[in-house]
Amino acid sequence: MRHDLDPPRHDVRRLVEMALAEDLTPFGDLSATLLDPAQTCTAEFVPRAPGVIAGTRCVIETFAAVDPSIELEFAVGDGERVEARQVIATARGSFASVLTAERTALNFLSHLSGIATNAASWVDVAAGRVTVWDTRKTLPGYRSLQKAAVRAGGASNHRGNLSDWIMVKDNHLLGTTIAEAVAASRRNWPGRTVHVEADRRDQVDEACDAGADIILCDNFSPAELTDLVAHVDARCAAEGLRRPLLEASGGITFDTLDAYAGTGVDLLSSGSLTNAAPVLDIGLDVVPTA
Amino acid sequence: MRHDLDPPRHDVRRLVEMALAEDLTPFGDLSATLLDPAQTCTAEFVPRAPGVIAGTRCVIETFAAVDPSIELEFAVGDGERVEARQVIATARGSFASVLTAERTALNFLSHLSGIATNAASWVDVAAGRVTVWDTRKTLPGYRSLQKAAVRAGGASNHRGNLSDWIMVKDNHLLGTTIAEAVAASRRNWPGRTVHVEADRRDQVDEACDAGADIILCDNFSPAELTDLVAHVDARCAAEGLRRPLLEASGGITFDTLDAYAGTGVDLLSSGSLTNAAPVLDIGLDVVPTA
Amino acid sequence: MRHDLDPPRHDVRRLVEMALAEDLTPFGDLSATLLDPAQTCTAEFVPRAPGVIAGTRCVIETFAAVDPSIELEFAVGDGERVEARQVIATARGSFASVLTAERTALNFLSHLSGIATNAASWVDVAAGRVTVWDTRKTLPGYRSLQKAAVRAGGASNHRGNLSDWIMVKDNHLLGTTIAEAVAASRRNWPGRTVHVEADRRDQVDEACDAGADIILCDNFSPAELTDLVAHVDARCAAEGLRRPLLEASGGITFDTLDAYAGTGVDLLSSGSLTNAAPVLDIGLDVVPTA
Amino acid sequence: MRHDLDPPRHDVRRLVEMALAEDLTPFGDLSATLLDPAQTCTAEFVPRAPGVIAGTRCVIETFAAVDPSIELEFAVGDGERVEARQVIATARGSFASVLTAERTALNFLSHLSGIATNAASWVDVAAGRVTVWDTRKTLPGYRSLQKAAVRAGGASNHRGNLSDWIMVKDNHLLGTTIAEAVAASRRNWPGRTVHVEADRRDQVDEACDAGADIILCDNFSPAELTDLVAHVDARCAAEGLRRPLLEASGGITFDTLDAYAGTGVDLLSSGSLTNAAPVLDIGLDVVPTA
Amino acid sequence: MRHDLDPPRHDVRRLVEMALAEDLTPFGDLSATLLDPAQTCTAEFVPRAPGVIAGTRCVIETFAAVDPSIELEFAVGDGERVEARQVIATARGSFASVLTAERTALNFLSHLSGIATNAASWVDVAAGRVTVWDTRKTLPGYRSLQKAAVRAGGASNHRGNLSDWIMVKDNHLLGTTIAEAVAASRRNWPGRTVHVEADRRDQVDEACDAGADIILCDNFSPAELTDLVAHVDARCAAEGLRRPLLEASGGITFDTLDAYAGTGVDLLSSGSLTNAAPVLDIGLDVVPTA
Amino acid sequence: MRHDLDPPRHDVRRLVEMALAEDLTPFGDLSATLLDPAQTCTAEFVPRAPGVIAGTRCVIETFAAVDPSIELEFAVGDGERVEARQVIATARGSFASVLTAERTALNFLSHLSGIATNAASWVDVAAGRVTVWDTRKTLPGYRSLQKAAVRAGGASNHRGNLSDWIMVKDNHLLGTTIAEAVAASRRNWPGRTVHVEADRRDQVDEACDAGADIILCDNFSPAELTDLVAHVDARCAAEGLRRPLLEASGGITFDTLDAYAGTGVDLLSSGSLTNAAPVLDIGLDVVPTA
Repeated sequence: MRHDLDPPRHDVRRLVEMALAEDLTPFGDLSATLLDPAQTCTAEFVPRAPGVIAGTRCVIETFAAVDPSIELEFAVGDGERVEARQVIATARGSFASVLTAERTALNFLSHLSGIATNAASWVDVAAGRVTVWDTRKTLPGYRSLQKAAVRAGGASNHRGNLSDWIMVKDNHLLGTTIAEAVAASRRNWPGRTVHVEADRRDQVDEACDAGADIILCDNFSPAELTDLVAHVDARCAAEGLRRPLLEASGGITFDTLDAYAGTGVDLLSSGSLTNAAPVLDIGLDVVPTA
Repeated sequence: MRHDLDPPRHDVRRLVEMALAEDLTPFGDLSATLLDPAQTCTAEFVPRAPGVIAGTRCVIETFAAVDPSIELEFAVGDGERVEARQVIATARGSFASVLTAERTALNFLSHLSGIATNAASWVDVAAGRVTVWDTRKTLPGYRSLQKAAVRAGGASNHRGNLSDWIMVKDNHLLGTTIAEAVAASRRNWPGRTVHVEADRRDQVDEACDAGADIILCDNFSPAELTDLVAHVDARCAAEGLRRPLLEASGGITFDTLDAYAGTGVDLLSSGSLTNAAPVLDIGLDVVPTA
Repeated sequence: MRHDLDPPRHDVRRLVEMALAEDLTPFGDLSATLLDPAQTCTAEFVPRAPGVIAGTRCVIETFAAVDPSIELEFAVGDGERVEARQVIATARGSFASVLTAERTALNFLSHLSGIATNAASWVDVAAGRVTVWDTRKTLPGYRSLQKAAVRAGGASNHRGNLSDWIMVKDNHLLGTTIAEAVAASRRNWPGRTVHVEADRRDQVDEACDAGADIILCDNFSPAELTDLVAHVDARCAAEGLRRPLLEASGGITFDTLDAYAGTGVDLLSSGSLTNAAPVLDIGLDVVPTA
Repeated sequence: MRHDLDPPRHDVRRLVEMALAEDLTPFGDLSATLLDPAQTCTAEFVPRAPGVIAGTRCVIETFAAVDPSIELEFAVGDGERVEARQVIATARGSFASVLTAERTALNFLSHLSGIATNAASWVDVAAGRVTVWDTRKTLPGYRSLQKAAVRAGGASNHRGNLSDWIMVKDNHLLGTTIAEAVAASRRNWPGRTVHVEADRRDQVDEACDAGADIILCDNFSPAELTDLVAHVDARCAAEGLRRPLLEASGGITFDTLDAYAGTGVDLLSSGSLTNAAPVLDIGLDVVPTA
Repeated sequence: MRHDLDPPRHDVRRLVEMALAEDLTPFGDLSATLLDPAQTCTAEFVPRAPGVIAGTRCVIETFAAVDPSIELEFAVGDGERVEARQVIATARGSFASVLTAERTALNFLSHLSGIATNAASWVDVAAGRVTVWDTRKTLPGYRSLQKAAVRAGGASNHRGNLSDWIMVKDNHLLGTTIAEAVAASRRNWPGRTVHVEADRRDQVDEACDAGADIILCDNFSPAELTDLVAHVDARCAAEGLRRPLLEASGGITFDTLDAYAGTGVDLLSSGSLTNAAPVLDIGLDVVPTA
Repeated sequence: MRHDLDPPRHDVRRLVEMALAEDLTPFGDLSATLLDPAQTCTAEFVPRAPGVIAGTRCVIETFAAVDPSIELEFAVGDGERVEARQVIATARGSFASVLTAERTALNFLSHLSGIATNAASWVDVAAGRVTVWDTRKTLPGYRSLQKAAVRAGGASNHRGNLSDWIMVKDNHLLGTTIAEAVAASRRNWPGRTVHVEADRRDQVDEACDAGADIILCDNFSPAELTDLVAHVDARCAAEGLRRPLLEASGGITFDTLDAYAGTGVDLLSSGSLTNAAPVLDIGLDVVPTA
């Protein structure tokens, strides 16, 4: 089990608690009252399509909250690729409890595996030429879970939140300059990453001169980026400047990804990694035990 | 303002609180510290594509939590259609506060408006021939918000949760019959909807005989459904049975929707209403005030 | 153990946590500090009067929260009748911990068993002639626990909350008619129970014509109800209308219950099931172990 | 407004939040969607029987949480006696919001006013001869609210919780004596009330000698108590001991109250003050405004 | 294990949850991802200076929340004195988990042991001549934990909170007298400690006459207190008054403690017990296991 | 008002809620019931010693939670220096409410201003020669508040938590090298600060070669640091390496601060900034208004 792929437990537990409250209030699972309480079953989580798994921790906590006596065994962990119909995990125990937990567990698993699968498809296209980065375009309350799913897919996490590092966007430059903004950031938040958004080549130069750690090159075309990378490399070498990381961003889609990946930028970010990932279709195949 | 489109306030408030905690812990918005605290702005929420709006209540609570002094005026309410570039709402107040709240507000609004827009596109195709229903395939913690967005799009809400009404699925029939399961449901939960899943015509007949309120016809083709509706109509008339509502479900996609909508079933449900809705691209255009 | 009698775990856990916080803040159980920490005991939950048990899940969670090492064994489950002095459950473990948990556990158990016992006494009088229904007159925060206790007593649960199904009361008819209100409900909330309150026979007729699922006949006398049932039966048969469920409500007390039970109505509801149930007197008999 | 009758705000707010969550999840008030959102009303809280009011703070918080625009005016505060049909409070504002808040507000008000009314009836019988005390037999999560309602009825609050002061009951005397237990309490918790339970006269003497602040005289008859009071008075005077407060407890009911009240004890406690109080029947009379 | 030194579990758990959330949001422990997940270790909690231990319950809950598989064994319990370099506890298990939990566990343990150590140093100087009392000058949210640490150090707890007993300070005497305030307290809150603050000898006399349980003698010098004690003893004996407990307070520091301790007062309180206690320097010595 | 000094609102609100719950449960402020509810007052927050203010946001939230009708006016904001007896803020309103809120407000303000004052004294000694950094040695639950107080004192915030950036300590080097650990960090967490702890000069060299952003030089003496800085400067210049930030840490106290500040390191960190700061003595001077 790779623990770098786990979201913090408290975030998982809180969402599981919210999920069960919203699904079971006030009477519990009415349909489950039709079943013999002593009936047991075996149930397998099985994807209907190939993908990359994320969210197993949510499944574990969901079953633990519904019925701690259910045994849950994972054949596949977060970050692993699965084929369609390959068993991810097997649950054994109360038939009624498994049916009660089913939808909540699947809602987590299919959403987060969908993000992991989507991220992995970007990473596949990037093919090592560029690091694929997520954004803060995550669903409120799911930041840590969705970002863990991005890691499960092999992509990387951008800034975690507004408090994580400084991003100097155009709105932050009102009445100041890039140079001054970077200097103030270094002074006030020493040791912390300073990231500058640039829309034009002269702003990129200014950010290099200011010593930014990363420059977000916003809405440049692939051709412009190829030029820009060469320019920045040359200029930094010539002037003895540290070469900052260069990030491409702005309207990059899966379709244009390949073009951007070959431009020489270090990083490439897209909100669609998290906010446009289709769910991975996963089912729970339940078989009552005799 | 139509209050049937509002999710419960406590659900909205809790998610807003989680969102701001995850985006601002532990230091707040570092980049905002670059700004003059006295600087004000006007900011407009503007969609980049046409759609249907949902989630305005989340935007209101987000701004109220970040900075209650910001004035927020909505030109469009939940459930209304907007054109690309039509102003949805205008915020006026502290520049720093607006930038701090921006991403959280947009994450809610674009996700929920995406669901509303998606639902509306289904309703448009249905064109009054069938009621479009959502499912329990919602993101854990977002049940009430996503279902409100479905209503904003003009579609309808299926069962709210496991406690809402009884669904007799095949798993619930182990050691019993549809007739017995419906009778037990009526006895234990009088007055409550009893919904039966049927995979075959004989099960549909059995559910009619048992007096089910709704029959979910699972994985029938459009042609089979057209036949089935005629059969049920005739049989109920002949035998003096109340004609239950008939729901088509199982693998219906936007592409096959039109075919299903014309089969004569009353209702049609798909998880993709909520779990496959792309976000509506909405931006916040911020202009500092002099 | 019948799991249809369990309230949702999260509701139980939250109330147990609130109970222990309010009983132990800030210093814990001062009197328990007089005891030898190594002293153990056996303690039996024993009712002082006959009744029906509910709330065992609360007892379990209370002891688990105070001291998970206490062993707790139930001889009787929720929904079972007990004689005075019949042992319900036995706790074994730390003397100090048992005394600390005692009052909280008893406060839950005696309150909820009181409701179950009260409900059972109504069900006994009803004697199968009518279904006894609770109401929304429950203590805030205890909706699911009190309704589970009602089920433990053999009675049934009415609407769970305002979101569960539609009740068209006189206040909801301002500017509309029963027919229109029922039609709007069917349109907006398809598949969901529609319940209409009627004060007069013509309203009952109107509700039948509108296709209401249930009609609450408010403040009719037993004699009037007997007539009304015959009228509705005849009228629905004559006009080929589905016969709705008929509910008697309004000022029904345990004393008048018998008269109402024989009127032919299907259901009978009273707030006093939950808000006027005396506690079942239950004690904890603690014996230190040598 | 007497602020000694207010329960702590955080307790009230938390229960109101729980109440609205349980009554409105997940779709809100379905029936309210039948109403014109612009329709307003005037609504009066009116008791159907005479009583003493408690819980107004809960009503205030409920309306504030449902719809802050509703104006709420109280004619009567906590602790005041009302006649049947006397207006307690008037709400003005959105018709839909008032109907949504109605049941939650009434559930609080009728429960807590029931306790206040019950307490007042005990105080009336006591007629200044004895102080009427509550117990820890309160509903979990409602300790502070129910104890505030007891004060509203003119009775007094016993120990707030297990941490409040030391009660030496028979279970706490295993392997020790009253004298030692009181001494240990004084040593460990200086300045804090020490309360001793006594079943027999010799234990009462022992507790007096030990310097207990209060002696709970458990299960003494009124005649025995009259004797006991005289005995303690004489003995303390003779031996120069401080006369402790004497509390009668154990099976005292409203019917036997008068006999106990005249025995000369200082205090008299009964769990039935809180756990056997019938609700005060209060209704909300709603009139739409033209 | 002395359970009188444990703070309530719910307080500990809530702070542990807050601590881990603030230390691990949103990505978890980044540095721990550098480690082999299978690597185990042994880790010892070792003080760098002598002291008294408090907070072991927080350490237990922290490790349980981070990784329940870690084995934790305590050689020393709350309230015990340790030498520098004496092992307090040993943890065995996942290397990564131990490093993740380390700082949170140490932050609790060093803070609370610092308070216990500080309190013990006061108790040592008091040498049985006077009881050392804390105050309400505790860190918000830490009341029960800091007061438990004071007990671990051998000192005693003053009033737990504003609701615990009545303190009549000068601000409470506006428009009333000590005699009236004490009488009102006795009437409204029978059985509860009444504590009066006095700045002058005549106020002390007045409080004695009023029957106060404790008199806080504010800002008297040691010499004045010695006189005052003699005066009160004589006066109470002469007039047959119960001698109240006398508390010295106001600007007492560790340096002046010895002088105050010998004045004959019963109790002596200082905010510096809790709000000026230096942390006890404790480290975690971690050794990877082969 | 400088908003970079505000801790996140949700953290403040949660601690205020916890503080009031622990101080007012279950009966509220008993002593306040002695006061005339209509009595008003003016109250001034006045330090008894000079210092730097932090925590005003906590005072605002405390008063708002106790009684929103109290008017609170600040003459001094977070981060400002005050003289002894200089008025910080003035509250006007209900006498009873002010007394109830007093201790909670002061507990926050004196603790956080104590940290700000302590930090400022370090910054004064540093005199611009070195940046003073805090650590993660903060009280659990107070991370964001204590770190904001450090900023108010003019010092800077180190890593916010374990998730903020990577610190490679000796424990993280088991089975790997500094070079490999830095490379893995860059690969897995691109753009994020990588901080390496070094105990010896060769480790410092290795960290420079590996491209660490910051090197924590642990337990070097001032003389060693002076040498080290010269060495690193020379070596980086010679080899064309980026010169990392150099941090001194390990046992630095206020007494040795001056020596370390002149060594040429960029940063200097000490846990005592937060965990050994004495409270700033602040009182509330309350004057009833006629």
